[in-house]
Amino acid sequence: MQNQVTIFIPNSFLADTKDLKLKTSKVGLIGRALATFEVDQVVVYKDLSIPDEKQNEDGDFIAEVLNYMNTPQYLRKKAIPIKSELRHVGILPPLRTPHHPTGQPKLGDYRQGFTVKRNKKGTFVDIGMDELVFCKEQLTVNKIFSFKITKFAKEVIVTPDEPDDIYWGYKTISTNKGLKNSLKLTNPDLVVETTRFADTIDSVFDELKTKVNSSNNLAIVFGGFYSATEENLESGLWETIKINTIPNQGTEMVRIEEAVFSTLAIFNLF
Amino acid sequence: MQNQVTIFIPNSFLADTKDLKLKTSKVGLIGRALATFEVDQVVVYKDLSIPDEKQNEDGDFIAEVLNYMNTPQYLRKKAIPIKSELRHVGILPPLRTPHHPTGQPKLGDYRQGFTVKRNKKGTFVDIGMDELVFCKEQLTVNKIFSFKITKFAKEVIVTPDEPDDIYWGYKTISTNKGLKNSLKLTNPDLVVETTRFADTIDSVFDELKTKVNSSNNLAIVFGGFYSATEENLESGLWETIKINTIPNQGTEMVRIEEAVFSTLAIFNLF
Repeated sequence: MQNQVTIFIPNSFLADTKDLKLKTSKVGLIGRALATFEVDQVVVYKDLSIPDEKQNEDGDFIAEVLNYMNTPQYLRKKAIPIKSELRHVGILPPLRTPHHPTGQPKLGDYRQGFTVKRNKKGTFVDIGMDELVFCKEQLTVNKIFSFKITKFAKEVIVTPDEPDDIYWGYKTISTNKGLKNSLKLTNPDLVVETTRFADTIDSVFDELKTKVNSSNNLAIVFGGFYSATEENLESGLWETIKINTIPNQGTEMVRIEEAVFSTLAIFNLF
Repeated sequence: MQNQVTIFIPNSFLADTKDLKLKTSKVGLIGRALATFEVDQVVVYKDLSIPDEKQNEDGDFIAEVLNYMNTPQYLRKKAIPIKSELRHVGILPPLRTPHHPTGQPKLGDYRQGFTVKRNKKGTFVDIGMDELVFCKEQLTVNKIFSFKITKFAKEVIVTPDEPDDIYWGYKTISTNKGLKNSLKLTNPDLVVETTRFADTIDSVFDELKTKVNSSNNLAIVFGGFYSATEENLESGLWETIKINTIPNQGTEMVRIEEAVFSTLAIFNLF
């Protein structure tokens, strides 16, 4: 997928379990799917069909765990405050993506870094080495940015930069807004809604492929438990396609993590 | 998929976690995948690249949990002995397939039943009703069979039978044998080996589709952590194809549960 791809997950995603460890593990599957299929962004929206305020908390939790997974191991302790809800993050599978390097850095490498402190000349950055490195720009402190190592001598210098030919992780947003309003925030040109109540993907494969490939900002939407989403997503701002990515499903329902893997596996062929 | 489909999972599938609840949950994903994509059979084989005897136990555990999931709720307590390793089965998602009916049975319905006791005239069977029903055949007791309800009056009579146009669940086998020997047990005509070290599925989509559709007994093989399987699977008994079902994967490794969903989602389009 060359274009920008965002997937949309309802905050009711975790409604079927109260067990924090299992909740954490379930979100882990989504994080793995995002990285495996090189998705650029994930948006957790508010499932308006469930009026429970508890879901907002779940939505924020989903976003926190996804953000944790996307953070390289060497920055997690520094960048992510300890909190009780994150006590099971140790069970999360690593992404093992290029933006989570494990070896020693060298000149020309890209690295995510955490901005620790700043002076008049620039910013001290933790890129997972024994010593902080230096960036000759004034950056907001206590944040993660991507850098390129532009000097690697006694002093290591980094410059804000990101590779454009390597998958560099995903962004996570929890909107606490309904789906349609969440879509507006990301400004897609094509919205693909996955639902069993639509044409099966094999029957419109080539047509869908063409549309997806000519989209610059694709949104793939998952409803609560793979049911149709409650909201009407039609808009003059984007084209909407409904599609059933699991023709002849053997089970009455398909769970969101199952739909995400199945759908992205097929879209990955485009 | 009209032909017989069997998937092969290594007994090293659970090697990355020691937590029984998470192990149970991981197997749950496989059970859900089997039912969602209407797979007929799953074989747990011995991963010969890991010489640890502990894996055999894991293999049997995987098979037990899959078997539990495939057993309708109303027969589980009766048919599956309580054991400590199964103490987390309560977290498993239901399959919600036609062979797990929830309503009251009626004439002509198919039901799985547990054979409770036998006399000269036949066998008493538990099909989840308040009373046992009767089958006029001598069946082995303490086993699950499929039946059709052929009389529904004061007395309910069932006859061994299975629908052939409805997905009726999967069989589970744990072989404790290597992959090639496990394949021989199921006698496939086409073996598809999923590995990242092969042609990508999009490049051979039509060819593969043709072969899969003309196969009567398809085996889809998953290696340890989606690496190539250690064994050479070539044989005069079947045709072998290696295929990468996740082109351009963003992560260094793809986990088995991820590969299973992704691969079956694509094969479901054939």
